[in-house]
Formats: sequence, structure tokens, C-alpha cells
Amino acid sequence: MNRRAFLAKRQCSNTRARTGRLLTRHGEIKTPVFMPVGTQASVKAISPGELLALGAHIILGNTYHLYLRPGHELIRALGGLHRFMNWHRPILTDSGGFQVYSLAPFRKIYEEGALFRSHIDGSLHKLTPELAIEVQEALGSDIMMALDTCIPYPCPEKETEAATDLTTRWAQRCLEARTKPGLLLFGIIQGGMFRHLRIRHTEQLLGLGFDGYALGGLSVGEPKEILFEMIECSRPLIPDHLPCYVMGVGTPEDMVECVSMGIDMFDCVMPTRNARNGMLFTSFGRIVIKNARFALDESPIDPECTCYTCRNYSRAYLRHLFMARELLSYRLNTIHNLHYYLNLLSEIRSAIERDDFSTFRKNFFSMRNVR
Amino acid sequence: MNRRAFLAKRQCSNTRARTGRLLTRHGEIKTPVFMPVGTQASVKAISPGELLALGAHIILGNTYHLYLRPGHELIRALGGLHRFMNWHRPILTDSGGFQVYSLAPFRKIYEEGALFRSHIDGSLHKLTPELAIEVQEALGSDIMMALDTCIPYPCPEKETEAATDLTTRWAQRCLEARTKPGLLLFGIIQGGMFRHLRIRHTEQLLGLGFDGYALGGLSVGEPKEILFEMIECSRPLIPDHLPCYVMGVGTPEDMVECVSMGIDMFDCVMPTRNARNGMLFTSFGRIVIKNARFALDESPIDPECTCYTCRNYSRAYLRHLFMARELLSYRLNTIHNLHYYLNLLSEIRSAIERDDFSTFRKNFFSMRNVR
Repeated sequence: MNRRAFLAKRQCSNTRARTGRLLTRHGEIKTPVFMPVGTQASVKAISPGELLALGAHIILGNTYHLYLRPGHELIRALGGLHRFMNWHRPILTDSGGFQVYSLAPFRKIYEEGALFRSHIDGSLHKLTPELAIEVQEALGSDIMMALDTCIPYPCPEKETEAATDLTTRWAQRCLEARTKPGLLLFGIIQGGMFRHLRIRHTEQLLGLGFDGYALGGLSVGEPKEILFEMIECSRPLIPDHLPCYVMGVGTPEDMVECVSMGIDMFDCVMPTRNARNGMLFTSFGRIVIKNARFALDESPIDPECTCYTCRNYSRAYLRHLFMARELLSYRLNTIHNLHYYLNLLSEIRSAIERDDFSTFRKNFFSMRNVR
Repeated sequence: MNRRAFLAKRQCSNTRARTGRLLTRHGEIKTPVFMPVGTQASVKAISPGELLALGAHIILGNTYHLYLRPGHELIRALGGLHRFMNWHRPILTDSGGFQVYSLAPFRKIYEEGALFRSHIDGSLHKLTPELAIEVQEALGSDIMMALDTCIPYPCPEKETEAATDLTTRWAQRCLEARTKPGLLLFGIIQGGMFRHLRIRHTEQLLGLGFDGYALGGLSVGEPKEILFEMIECSRPLIPDHLPCYVMGVGTPEDMVECVSMGIDMFDCVMPTRNARNGMLFTSFGRIVIKNARFALDESPIDPECTCYTCRNYSRAYLRHLFMARELLSYRLNTIHNLHYYLNLLSEIRSAIERDDFSTFRKNFFSMRNVR
């Protein structure tokens, strides 16, 4: 294990919300943090300069995608992912396990690893825990994720248990495979929607000694109560000196709730993907920009927003760009949505720092019911 | 006619190349100038801020597109095209004549105007000279173009003559239709590929008294010799105190040649469209970024280029973005190609100013043969 990478800073008096700092080779990350998703060595529709201007501390890269195209050996030869894509702040890479499950047209799980076909050209590949680490080390990831095996939702107990146990063995192999201790490695806690499996898996992975822990296999279609219940199974077991990340969460509302449960890190394609579909986040809820009522609307997306898009463009223009399928539409919408997410996390951190998170949370939810 | 809008500045000693200044309500344009095409109230893939950084003096908007979507009345109600799209330098709008010819799935020309169906929804519209001016005034164009009627290439003499004569009558009606003399209005010289029709039409339109003249119906598939021959028919007839614009030209090589013939203004979709197709302009010719030989190439597109893309990204990364169809690909390629075009015109202006254009032109063409 690394020299302690995470420092808890301020603890909320009323909830388990907390601030902290996560130290990586490419600098410090203030938590709780949202990580924009940069699937194929690019956060879709925007530039690294725009990410910096938005205040992004860290982005996520997808091992599955980069392994298939352009290939990790190519990125290694070109000096790593940071240099390749001109992003010099931290990068977390996932393990590829989820994309093998969700994207590959064929997949079979063996003890050794996951056999799958590429969604790009149908070619056959085998992703093992050792390869997952090799790829992430080649990319030069600041935070690597251990390879996990994902299951459908819902999934029977026996199948869930087998997949969870396999994830434990793969986690152990990931720890053994790593050759660069300077890169952080997080374990992924699975266990489906079964309390006892979640608890057991948390204990098993804690025993292995990762630099941080992610809760995986969540936000896959289960009801919110179950999402929060599963987080509750694992989160209290994880010691305060370790960062805790819920993968794939989520909506602004979910993130606020998860922060109150002690979660430090988030990632989700929602702000970027929804932007490209014309769904925009505002302080008073979501709007769909193609709606005809915006055709002559000179106001910005959100009068309270300070993002580049809201400072410079009207809803009418953004609606026009979207209807005309202009490329600028995707960029301006993405900037707005990521600003919303990153600003929300920034406000959450400030609220926790001044020990006012409970009020913040109450106001956050009341705003959304009022309008 | 307006108070003189154009000031010729420096005349090349060896060719008809010249520099000048064109004065508009939104500021001064240094000529010779290239105008990036902003078809649907957006120069595809880039922002107004990027256009400013690239040193664009003026952009072109398409009357046909903006009339159909979002509609000129909407843009008028929102304060005009400059405000709508957040671009506060000059805008030239074309008349819609060429798009009615090239894009509409149905078109019929009458004395009154052109009846056509929208390429978006098949709806029926009638574009008259009066409507072309009404739309352009509603947009708040700085330089409006008179409505012309376009013909195929090749086209028989009789048909060409009839279309050219109709364009003269429409030109007269455009002059009479205008209600805002502060906006400049250029006539479009047609005449197909017939010398005598080109000469006659030039004289006819000069007699009507426009603020400037465009040579239309060129760069439509004819051999280069004919393009230059047709320009030669008209250009010498146009007085020095009037700006002269060749529409839809063209390649870097064509622009250099046209400048030597006394052309002041250019527009073309080539730099932006080719960028989105992965074809990039360099000081040593064109490159196709998807070529496999760039997969591991760490150098910029053009080592001599100072654009944002070349300062920050490798050919390898740009190839990856293009292969992965990432939106950032289109932006970075567009920035590079527009930089190439705008920088070329800037170098041309400098060369003319120091009366060194002949040498510049010789070097320009020898560079392209060497590598």
C-alpha cells in the first residue's frame, strides 16, 4: 500500500458528509469530487482547457475503450494518457469490467479473466486482472481500479455470490500484478443487492489493503432505497482514512444524498451525455432545450448560473443550435451541465467546511420542489 | 449607394494584387480577406471566441438556411444575427440564390422569384429579390448580396443568357427593395462560362451602382483556366474604388492566383468542411489525418504552424480523435484549417504592403512542389 494518499479534513456535525484531500502524482484532489468522464481520451465535446476553466480536479478514462482504441501500448509509447490528451491533472481509470459487461457483443467469464469481443470490430480479447493493471499502468493512471466482474440487475443470490467471490480473487491478483506502487489502486466492492454479500465483500476487500474503495454494481436500475441501503452496508465499515467512491452515481440529488452518507468521489456520464441530448441541469430542475417555448427566449439556461454558456448565449440560440444539430450545441450544453455538476460539488465542499451541509441539503431539495 | 465603403490602400507593382479596407457598421475589414462560412448562425465546430482568436475579420451567414431555420423574423425579434450568435464583427450574408439551386429538392424560376421546397421539411417557399433583401435586413447583415439565379455547369448559351438577364432585373429590384442604406449591398455578376455574357453582365451591374461586386457562378466544376478567364473578363472593368469578391473560391492556390488578379474577398467551406473530413492544410500541402502512418507520430500537424491545435496536440492524438469520431476532432481540425487560411491571407496582405507579393507567390508555389 502507498503512503497514506487521503487526508480527511472536515466532518459534518449532523451527517457523515466530510471534506478531504486525495494526493496523487498529478496533484491534489479536493473531495467530495465529481469526475467528468473522458471515455476515449476526451471528455466528449470539450477541450482540456475548458475542463480547467470549469474547475475539474480529475477526470475518468475508460480502460476498455483505450485498450481497444488506440491501444495502451500506443499511449505508453507516446508518454502516457496525460501527455497524449494534453490533460495534466489527475486521471482515474476504471478497470474495463463494466464496459466488458455492458458494451461487448459477446462475453464469457472464466476464473482467469473475461473473454469478450470488441464492440468496434468484433475481435476477440481476454481481459485478466493482470492485463487490467498492465493497461492502466501503461496509461499512467493516477488512480487505477481493480478488475471486477459485473452482474445483471436483478441477479439471483447464488450467481451474485459467485461473481462477488471471483471479484475478490481478481482483486488479490490486481494487487499482486502492480509494478508501480506510485499509482494508487482502489478495490471495487460488489455483492449485488444482497446486504450480507455487500458486507462480506467489503470486509474481504478491506483485508486486502487497497488505497481506496469503490462501491460498484450500483446505479444499474435498482430503486433508490436499495441504492442507499447497499451504500449503508459498506460505507460504515470503511475506515475514515480511506477514500470512498460510488461508481456511476449519478443525479445531482443522488450525489447530495451520497455525500451525506460519507461518499467522497463520483463519476457519471449523465451531465455530458444529457447535454448532447439537449437536457440541461438548472438550479430549479431540468429543462429540455428543444422545447418550442424556448424559441424566442432571450434568457440564459439558468439566470443564476455563471458558466460560459449562460454568460454568452440565450436559450433561443441554444435551441436553434440543437435543432440544427450544430456541433457547437454539444459543446455549449456540455460546458453548462459540467459547470452545474462541478459547481454543485464545490458548494457542497464549502457547506461542509463551514459545517452547514444540513442546511445546504435542505435548501437544495426545497428549491427543486418549489418551481 | 453608400458613402464610399472601400478604400484601396497599396497596389502591387507587378500584379493587380492590392490591399484595402472595407468599412462596415461592425468595423473595418482588411483586404484581401477570407470569410469563414457560418451557415446556420455558427461556423461549424468552433465558437465566436475561437474565431476572434484566429483573427477572423468577418464571417459569412447563409440567408437560405437562416430563413428556413430558425427564421429571419425570430432573429430580428432577438436583435439580429450578431447578437443571436454572439459575434460582434462584420457579417456578410449571401442571397440564398445558390442554396436554392444546390440544396432545394424542387426549384422553379419565375420572373417574380424562385419557387422551391425546403430541404428540411419539404415546405414550399418563394424567394423573391424583395424577400432576399427583407431577410438580410432582418438579420442585420453588414454586407448583403443581391439575389441571383444560378445555372448548372455546363449550360447552353441561350439558357445562360436568359438567367443572366433575369439576374440583372432581380439586381435592380434588390436595390429598390432596400430600406436600410447603412447596410452595404453587393451585386453578383453571372454570365456562365461565356466571355461576352460575363462582360455584358459586368457592365449592366456596374450601371446599377452597387457598393461592391461579386463574381458568382464560378468554382462550380469548370477547369481552372476557365475560372481565371472568367475572372479576367470582369475584374478589369470594375473600378478601383469598389471591392471585388469571388464567391466560393477556394483552394489556397486559387486564392493566391485570384489575389494576383485583383480580388479582395473570398469565402469557401473548404477549410471547415475538409477539417471535419480529416483533411488538413499545411505549408507543404494537404494531409489526411486518418492515415495509419500518423498513429505514433508525436509531431504537430505542421511544425511551422502556430495555431492552438499545433501548439497542443500531436498527429497521433488527432488521428485517434478522428478514428474515434470524438467531437473534439472536428474542432481541433477546424481551428487548424481556418488558421491556415486566415494566416495565408494575412501573409498575403503583408507581402502586398511591402510590395513583395510576386516573391511571396513564387515561394508559395515552389514550397508545394518541393515536398
